Order: sequence, then C-alpha cells, then structure tokens
Amino acid sequence: MNKIKVGIIGATGYAGAELVRLLVNHPAAEITAVSSVSYEGQRLDDIYPNLKEIVPMTLESVDEIIARCDVVFASVPHGVSEEMAVKCQAADTVLIDLGADFRLNDEADYKKWYGKEYKHPELHEKSVYCIPELHRDRVKNAPIIGNPGCYPTSISLGLMPAIKSGIIETAHIIIDSKSGVTGAGRGLTQGTHYPDTNEAFAAYKAGCHRHAPEIEQTLTELAGSKVKVTFVPHLLPVNRGIESSMYVTLNEKGSTMNIEQIHKIYTDAYANERFVRVEKLGNYANIKNVRMSNYCDISLHLDEHCSTLIISSVIDNMVKGAAGQALQNMNIRFGLDESTGLLTPPPAF
Amino acid sequence: MNKIKVGIIGATGYAGAELVRLLVNHPAAEITAVSSVSYEGQRLDDIYPNLKEIVPMTLESVDEIIARCDVVFASVPHGVSEEMAVKCQAADTVLIDLGADFRLNDEADYKKWYGKEYKHPELHEKSVYCIPELHRDRVKNAPIIGNPGCYPTSISLGLMPAIKSGIIETAHIIIDSKSGVTGAGRGLTQGTHYPDTNEAFAAYKAGCHRHAPEIEQTLTELAGSKVKVTFVPHLLPVNRGIESSMYVTLNEKGSTMNIEQIHKIYTDAYANERFVRVEKLGNYANIKNVRMSNYCDISLHLDEHCSTLIISSVIDNMVKGAAGQALQNMNIRFGLDESTGLLTPPPAF
Amino acid sequence: MNKIKVGIIGATGYAGAELVRLLVNHPAAEITAVSSVSYEGQRLDDIYPNLKEIVPMTLESVDEIIARCDVVFASVPHGVSEEMAVKCQAADTVLIDLGADFRLNDEADYKKWYGKEYKHPELHEKSVYCIPELHRDRVKNAPIIGNPGCYPTSISLGLMPAIKSGIIETAHIIIDSKSGVTGAGRGLTQGTHYPDTNEAFAAYKAGCHRHAPEIEQTLTELAGSKVKVTFVPHLLPVNRGIESSMYVTLNEKGSTMNIEQIHKIYTDAYANERFVRVEKLGNYANIKNVRMSNYCDISLHLDEHCSTLIISSVIDNMVKGAAGQALQNMNIRFGLDESTGLLTPPPAF
Amino acid sequence: MNKIKVGIIGATGYAGAELVRLLVNHPAAEITAVSSVSYEGQRLDDIYPNLKEIVPMTLESVDEIIARCDVVFASVPHGVSEEMAVKCQAADTVLIDLGADFRLNDEADYKKWYGKEYKHPELHEKSVYCIPELHRDRVKNAPIIGNPGCYPTSISLGLMPAIKSGIIETAHIIIDSKSGVTGAGRGLTQGTHYPDTNEAFAAYKAGCHRHAPEIEQTLTELAGSKVKVTFVPHLLPVNRGIESSMYVTLNEKGSTMNIEQIHKIYTDAYANERFVRVEKLGNYANIKNVRMSNYCDISLHLDEHCSTLIISSVIDNMVKGAAGQALQNMNIRFGLDESTGLLTPPPAF
Repeated sequence: MNKIKVGIIGATGYAGAELVRLLVNHPAAEITAVSSVSYEGQRLDDIYPNLKEIVPMTLESVDEIIARCDVVFASVPHGVSEEMAVKCQAADTVLIDLGADFRLNDEADYKKWYGKEYKHPELHEKSVYCIPELHRDRVKNAPIIGNPGCYPTSISLGLMPAIKSGIIETAHIIIDSKSGVTGAGRGLTQGTHYPDTNEAFAAYKAGCHRHAPEIEQTLTELAGSKVKVTFVPHLLPVNRGIESSMYVTLNEKGSTMNIEQIHKIYTDAYANERFVRVEKLGNYANIKNVRMSNYCDISLHLDEHCSTLIISSVIDNMVKGAAGQALQNMNIRFGLDESTGLLTPPPAF
Repeated sequence: MNKIKVGIIGATGYAGAELVRLLVNHPAAEITAVSSVSYEGQRLDDIYPNLKEIVPMTLESVDEIIARCDVVFASVPHGVSEEMAVKCQAADTVLIDLGADFRLNDEADYKKWYGKEYKHPELHEKSVYCIPELHRDRVKNAPIIGNPGCYPTSISLGLMPAIKSGIIETAHIIIDSKSGVTGAGRGLTQGTHYPDTNEAFAAYKAGCHRHAPEIEQTLTELAGSKVKVTFVPHLLPVNRGIESSMYVTLNEKGSTMNIEQIHKIYTDAYANERFVRVEKLGNYANIKNVRMSNYCDISLHLDEHCSTLIISSVIDNMVKGAAGQALQNMNIRFGLDESTGLLTPPPAF
Repeated sequence: MNKIKVGIIGATGYAGAELVRLLVNHPAAEITAVSSVSYEGQRLDDIYPNLKEIVPMTLESVDEIIARCDVVFASVPHGVSEEMAVKCQAADTVLIDLGADFRLNDEADYKKWYGKEYKHPELHEKSVYCIPELHRDRVKNAPIIGNPGCYPTSISLGLMPAIKSGIIETAHIIIDSKSGVTGAGRGLTQGTHYPDTNEAFAAYKAGCHRHAPEIEQTLTELAGSKVKVTFVPHLLPVNRGIESSMYVTLNEKGSTMNIEQIHKIYTDAYANERFVRVEKLGNYANIKNVRMSNYCDISLHLDEHCSTLIISSVIDNMVKGAAGQALQNMNIRFGLDESTGLLTPPPAF
Repeated sequence: MNKIKVGIIGATGYAGAELVRLLVNHPAAEITAVSSVSYEGQRLDDIYPNLKEIVPMTLESVDEIIARCDVVFASVPHGVSEEMAVKCQAADTVLIDLGADFRLNDEADYKKWYGKEYKHPELHEKSVYCIPELHRDRVKNAPIIGNPGCYPTSISLGLMPAIKSGIIETAHIIIDSKSGVTGAGRGLTQGTHYPDTNEAFAAYKAGCHRHAPEIEQTLTELAGSKVKVTFVPHLLPVNRGIESSMYVTLNEKGSTMNIEQIHKIYTDAYANERFVRVEKLGNYANIKNVRMSNYCDISLHLDEHCSTLIISSVIDNMVKGAAGQALQNMNIRFGLDESTGLLTPPPAF
C-alpha cells in the first residue's frame, strides 16, 4: 500500500514539531514535505536538534508542498488557514487545520473573537470540526477538518457524559483550566521567559479567552440548549499538559444518584474509546499520566454538601490537544484504525 | 526595651524553619529557643544548612522552652497543640498555634474533620482565630491564638469585600485553589517525591479538604448567613505560593455594577492594609509577586455574559499562609506595629 | 515468529517502569510477566497510572516468572542479582542485569565499592558487560549481560574516539557529570523531596561514586593502559538526563590537530552508529534533545590556550543509561536489529 | 545622619531589580532615583509588580539622576559604563559598575573579549576592581568600582585559600560552572524561552566565555604567576544560583596534607568573613542554601587516588554575584559595616 503523503505547514511551531515526532513512526503515512515561512530554506533539525539524523528535511515554501501531498496539516496564525484551504481545494489535498479558522460554526463568533471575516464562506460549509470521540462520523469525506483547540478538547470530553445523560444543570458551567507553557507557542514573550514563568502561577484572559465560544458551541450541541461557561485559564510552570477542573450542579435527576452511579455513566460512555480513560473513584486525573500521549484521563468527585460534581480532565495539550488529535483525525479521514501511530505509552516520569 | 522572647516548637518543620528565617532580623523579638521532637539534641543548622553561622542553636525538648519564653509558636500535628496550650497557660506564655487545634469554633466540626474531641474545652473559650485584616481586634489580650490555614487566608481575604458589600450570592461559592509543594510539609511522601511532582499537576481532596470548614466558618461570619463552598485544592509544581480562583455570582445589587465599581469596593476595603494589594484592572495576581513575603495580591475579573465575578487571590503559603501571619499576630498581640520584621520585599525572580 | 518472552524483575522501580514503556510496542518481544518484592499481588497500573488500560498486569513473585521467560531484566539492589542469575541459569533464561553485580571484572573492585563478595564466581566468568557501541560482539551467546551504569555509558561513549585515536593524555581525566533526579530512584529520601530538590544544585559523592571503577575499567581497556578519573556527579533538578563534561589534555599528536580534525575522528568513529550523534562544531549537546530516547549526543570544544579538549556527552539516564540500552542488548542477544523498538524520536519539549 | 543617596541606572534589568530589592530596607541608604533607557517615564512597579506599593517610583533618564546621587549603580551593556563614568566624575558621584567595563586591568584583554577600546583610559587608572574578601582595601576612596562578574566571584573565593597557601599546581585549573537562568538577563532569547530551558541542560561558550580573562586576572594576582583556566559554564534550569566545581592538582606540599589540614586552611582563611561559609567536611555546597543572600558556601573534597582537590563554591548569581556584592562594595566605600542591609537569611526553600 502506498503511504499517505503528508505535508506540514508551519512545521517549526510547537504543534508542527510535535506532528513530526508522531509521524516519524507512523506505519501508513510519511512526511513528504515540511514548510515554514520564517525558516524557509533551513533544515528542520537546525531548529529542532532533537530530530538530528531522524528527519533530515529542509523547510520549503507552502506553495511547493501542497500539490505533492495527500493531506497537509496547517499550524499557522488565524486568518492564514483559509488561504491554505483554497490552495488545498485546488490540489484536491485534504487540509487539517490546527488553527482557529475552521472551528466556529457561526461567523459572527469568529468575527467577535478574532476580528476577521470569512473570505471564503463556501469553505466553511464543507469543513467539519471534529473531536473524534464526539464527532468522528463527520470526518469521513470531509475535505477540510478544523482540529479542535486544546482547552475545548479537555473540557468537552470531560463534560460530555454528564451533559448527555441529563444529570446536570447546563445553563452555566464553571471551568478552571491550567495549561503548560508550550500552549503559548514557540514565540518569545516576557510572560514565557524562563525566570518569569518558573516558580510562577497566575490566571490569564479570565472570562475572555478565545476558546470560550468553541467550548460553548460544543457543549450547546451536546445539551441541545444554550450552555454558557465561565472559563478561566491559568499558566502552569510545566512544559506540557492541561488540567481542567469543571464544576457542575447536579439537577433533580443527578441529585438522586450516588457517585458510583455517576461514575458508571462515564465508564459506559467511554467503554469503547481507546484514548479516554476514566479514573477509578478516589483517584485524581494527573497531567503526568498522559504526557507525550493521546490519552485523556478523567476523574470524578462529588461535593455532596453542595450537590456539586467536580470533573477533572487532563490531556497533553500538544498531543490530544493538538498534533495527536489531528493525526487521529487523519487516520479516520483515510480509513485507518484511529489509533494508528498513537499508541506509544506515556512515560511514568 | 527588652526583646520579646520567642520559642518555636516544631522548628524543623517548614513553618518552623520559615519562622526562624523571619525572626532572625526582627528588631523587637529574639529567638530564645527552638525545639523538635524528632531532632532533639541536634543543631538546627544541620537540618537547615541555609542557617549555618546565622542561627547556631540546638534543638531542645518542648518542656524546657515554654517557661523561658514570652510567646511560643507551635507547628505540630493536630491534637498536640492542646497539650502545648495547657503548659503555656501554666507558664503564662502566649501560644500562637500554627496547627488546626484552635481554628474551628464548633467542636463538632473539629470532631468531624479531625476525628478527635477537645480535651480542654475551656482553652477554646479563651483562644481566638485571627486573620489580622479581618479580626485583629480579637488578638489584643488573647492567651492563645489560632493561626489560620493557608488556603483559608488566601480565600477569606479574596472574598471579604465582595461579601461585606453585599454584591454577591453567598449560599454557594466555588473555589479552585493551587498550592506549592511546601504546603505538604517536609515529611516524605510518594506524591512529593521530585520525579513524581515535577511536570505534574492534579487536584487532591476535591470537596473533602480539612480547610473547608474553616473557610465556611469565616465566610459565614462575614456574610451573616450560612455560606457553603465547593473547595478543590490542586498541587502545583513550585516550592511556594497559593493561588485561589473564586467564582461568585453577582446578585441583584452586584449586577448593576461595572467592574470599575467593584474594583473600588476592593481598593477601599484594603486602602489601609499594608499587606493586601489590589491589582489594577487588567492585571492578574501572580504567586511570583508575593513569594517570600507577607503580601496578599488580589485581582478582579468579570465574566459579564455569565454575571460572574472571578477573584484571584495569591499569597506565599509559608509566609502570609503560615509563619508571616503568625508573626503578624505576634506583633499585634505584643503591641508592635503589625508589619514589624515583615517588610522585606518579595524578589522579582 | 514467536515473540521473545520477557520478564521484568523489579518492575516498580524506575528502570523497570521504563522497560515496560519501551517494551509495550516492541514488535518482536512481549512482556510475559512483571514482578516486584514490595508490591507483589498488586496491579502495576496502580503503581504507575500512566499504564492504565495499556499494561493490565499483576505483579508476581520472582520465582514464578523466570521459568516462563526467554529473558528477564533484573533491576534489583546489588547483591540480589547473583541469586537471580542462579535461577536463570537453571531455567536456561537469559539475564540482563541492570544493577551492579555483573559490571566489574575484578572482584576486588566489587568488594571495595559494594562491600560484598561474589557468591558465585563462576557466573562472572560467563557474564559479559556491554555498551553495544563498544562491546557488541561480546553479547552474542552470553547467558548473563551486565548492563552498564548510566554515568559510565555517557562517559565511555564520549571518550572512546579520543582515547582510541591516541590524541589525549589518558593517565588522568576529569569528569564533571550532572544527572536528573530519576537517577536516584523511586525510593523516598530527603534529598529528592520536591522542595529540597527544586531550585537546588549540588555535587554529591565527589571522588567517591561507585561508578568510578566501572568508568576506569572501560577507559583502561580502551587505552590499553591504566586510566584514572576524577569523577564528580551532581544532582540536576530535572526528571531525566545526564550531561558529562569531560576535560582532557591533548597529547603531542593531538596538539597538532585543529578542532575540525578532532571532530572528524568522532564523526568517523560513530558514522555507523544509530544511537550516537556527534554535534556539528559550534553546537552543544543538550539533555533536552535526547529525552525519552536511546540517543547519545556528543559535542566537542577546544580550549586552545590550555590545549584542552572539552567533550560534552548527553543521554537520557533512564533510556540509554538504563532500560533502552538493556533493550538494545536484548536485541543483539536475540539476533534482532539493534534498534528494534527504540526508534521513537525524542520530543522537542 | 543623612542617608546615602543612591541612583540605579538600568533599574529594569535583573541586577537593577535585585539592587532595588536589597536597598529598600537598607538602614543607611535610600533609593533616590531609578533610570532605564527602554522604559523611561514608566513606573518601575509596572515592570516589576512585586514592588507594588513598595517602590512607587518612575523611571527617569540617566542624565537627570547622576547629579542628585552620592552613588550610582550602573547595570548597562559594556561600552556604556564608560560614558556613565565620565558623567559621574563631573558630578563627583561614585560609580559602581556592574558591567564589564571596569573589570579588566589590561586593555588588550578588553579589546580581545569585548571588541572595543577604552575611550577614557584615565578612568581606568582611577577605578578599582573589588571582590571585598580579596580586595576590600582598594575601595576606600575609589571614585569608580568595577563590580566583579558572577562566575569570577564564585571561582575566586573558592580558589583563594588553596592558591595563597601554595598547596596546588596553578598553571592550569579546570572549572566547570553552572548558572541559573537569571544570569542570562531579562532580554528574550530562544535559549531562555521556558519550554526550551525547562528540563534542559547544556554547556555554552565552552572555553570562550568573557569571564575567563577576569578569572585568570584575579587568580594570577593571587598566585603571583600566570594562571590559566579552562572555564566551561552551563545553563542550569533554576532561577538563581551558580555552582562552580573546580579541579586542582595538589602540588608537592599539598600532597603531604590530609583533607582535614586543607579544610583548616580554608576555615582559617575565612574565619573573619561574614559572607563566606566553609562547609563541614562531608557536606556539599548547594545553591539552595545561599539563594536570595550574599553568602558564598564552599565545600572541599579530595580525590586521593588522583591527588586532586575538588572545590565546590556556590553563590546566588544575582546577590553575591551582582547586586549584593555591589552593595557590599558601597558599604565599604562609604565607611559602613560591610554587611549592612545584607543580612536577610537565605530561605530554606
């Protein structure tokens, strides 16, 4: 069988670098080309010396690579992906966009949060947004896949069973998330300068992060009625990982349940999912246990005296929150087993 | 003037070590004696080599030191402080207890959360619990001061102005806290072993942490009606610092206010407080800015679309959350300026 | 082809856990059994929750597993491996020992540094010590393989080309090494308690570490004359990685060379080695680039004004320094391509 | 007594920020003005929020502040300090330069390592270089003080007793140093971006760091004959601290001594020094024990089988290695007790 020809646009960003890492050993795909606007003409392993003697490729221009690939992953600033999509359409190349351009159904949301309009609305008709565990059926023939954001992935997976089983109030959900520093990207900022980040911790964009509309979009679909979230991300002094603590009020139905029953709703919901692991009661989801991997671990805790369910959901922001999920989407799109190339276990330390 | 003679019981624990650090340069107090059950007879600077040539003291037994001191700080396991208190009463020595024995007004709470009964109920009549910014008037002649827990301090200071000004719903408050590893103490556990803690992050004791009743006690006093909290602490891979993100719903009165008005409530409330700093709107409280210091920084954020106020409050868990606040209480108790010995600025990095 | 049946003795130690991680996806081997003295009867994924739903195995006793395996890896305290070896011999099972029992050729060294005598000297006649890049020919039919220590691996690989090419003085070599905290193991100690280790750095066992005789043994073999080393390890506040900075004086022959010529000696020496990467001149070997992988990166630097060559060699102490190299040895022993199961690229972050 | 009026030029750099922290509580000096080229007109506590409500000062231009101060500390790029010195001379203001312009006696060295010539050679006649423990007598009336570099401070203090007592070979000394990331300054670089630095470790500028000539200058003065050093710094993933491991060969005299005798040479040499602490034999100098403080801790280790003395010396690079030592020099220059304002103990964690 011919291997799937893969191109990576924006290969020198962190998501791009992670895609390279995951694709190197993918049995049914091969990296055909990598591109970068900033580093065109340079070798990728000069930027990422971890890849020395493993990926001896030179960074090309975008235009050169789309036509040679069956699928391209784009990890570029918002507003740029639409242009990539036009080119991919012309070349009959599947586009998996790791940016924000194909995540929001409602252009008004995009305009409000990103300050731009869709230049090619017809592309958004064709594109799909896909967290595989929730929407894998959408992907089959899609020419453009909007890969979900990192926070929305951890949150949507954490809340889905509670919402779908109808045991919680969904009008307003409080979500306190914490992300490792790779989430802020490779670009230099004072806030990610080592001495400013190390031994530090703070919230940022409280109540005004761009992932909020994406989260509400997914949860509202699940609930069948408008869900609003108060979403507060924090910067965590680790390289990788997102933990989202979600606080939901049990409704009349939920209040009659004990934690074991709620736990069963979760284990049933994810019984056939390879990448979602529901913790035993009493255990806590820890970003440590999913690092470098595509797993999402979820733990459940009940504050009985307030009738509040606490859901802790963890992922590796660069894998399940970005490159891994994009690869999972590629596997689905090309008819492969969803977990192909994604089964390296997370390290213990 | 004679200096206040200070004894430290449990000097080899982290809170004890921090008390020593702060007291070394206190202009009106001197460390008269240090004690430790585990290390009696050894030198303190063998346990804490940072103190070499600075505090050349030997660890004594508890019984030897109480009579020689005007005040003792006790940092010992719960249940033990009561015995210390009996001895202090006999010696007319003020006791400042950094443990949990003198924090809860209701013995039923103590019994429920700590599994023990008060052996000397009369001592609890005499003792006071004091976060200085909220309760400093209580301390004046108190023979026993129950020093607050670290989480309750960050939370109570963060919520006080909102509760006292009557702008929020107080029946149920959601609190997501994160603490540095020194909060878990010097004792060895797998969960605080370096490779298990580094690059890790998880919640623990979600909805069942012993600080919850203390938090509810203080908030209920402030509100004048029962406040219930869903309190979820997380372990943060840094040495020091607590950040508490608090989510409160604005009530009818609060909903009419804009964030500037709410901010003014806070800056007014803390206008005369040396150790509480309210961030400018747009800034975020960061544990980095209060490390090694007795400050509590608070930032305010409004999620208008959910009518939810987000309060982020940070302290150094070992200073304002333990040793520093204990010293602040000592200063008040002995008629000194409250900030004596506590004004070393937090480092920038 | 039947897969190689692998047993892991001491599976709950860090080297054991790393072996499990690496073996999960090994195409020609399968984990048949895991054992642990401390946790017998418990599930491995209760100790290492990263392995949930990946390795659903229960820890057995040592005696039960040896007979069922083609090869066992033993990661146990020194002195215990000899007993394992006796049992393996009886069962015709290959033993790869990650401890110190089969590293030193000279029993006198073992006695001096480990305080014990060999109980079964005949086993030491049969066993081989093998850093594959230096000694792979030894392994072919060996029933017992002494897997090298982490420091000796980084050091021997870093020095081999310089010694074999005869360009340096070998009588005395200075080696300054730094190791991540996993090198100290999973057992709890004050020195590896998070708040004691984080933001800390110090040497330990300066001039008296047990790896020194192993280092001297290998270097002496390479040089053909007695090499003595001053070896000083330091504890580095990271989870993984060893960096060894080696200081060698160029001899008459070496002094005539420029750095490009010396560099060529290295690139030639390792031209056919899959796991050793010699950095371009001007670059520095960084533990970051070899994490989670079996690579050893080496960089070369010349202090001309002192005629001193500086060699920096980095490995992941748990992979090339332990589990990965053990697996590499297994691959050789069983006639597989040496890199089988070891080609997952190191992550960029 | 009037307080010494202090100005800080380059107050927004890390050394400047550290000077502010230390000066806030100095009993005999007051910060009169702070300046910054990049942030002129802004408030210092906007750049360093740790200083909120503590140092409510606005950053001024350099020209405005020199005339108003008794002493200015300059923490500016090399080449700029000379201009500051001219202005200070005109205003009769003492200059303490934390940069490199007044460290090297030999202009040829300056030219070789910094690529510039002295524009005002006469200033270099008047200026002094001063590590107080070695050169405090020089400072008394000096108008310009060249404050030593961080690495040279840790190294010179570590080697002084061994060199002055004549027990070691001094022709060639090997020094392996490791520095926390604040040593690289506040400016953004890829190498100090959090995800690139965290869990990383590597050497840099091996054999070619600009501090080498400064180190050789001091050691040569101490030895009375040319000392050459092979100096290799490494970047350590912590905020603060330098550890230097020094490897010296005992000469004929030294070889007759045991470690206790050598230890006594050190304890005698530093018996009257407030800021140098010689560890008990068997202990290791650890950066943890000197953080935030002006201490230098030194430990001694003997590798008998190679007749090599290993000296480990640790300082806080931002205090004894920069701002603290500069303040110590100011104290001497103005006739104060050398330790004034510098006695806050290092924290235990």
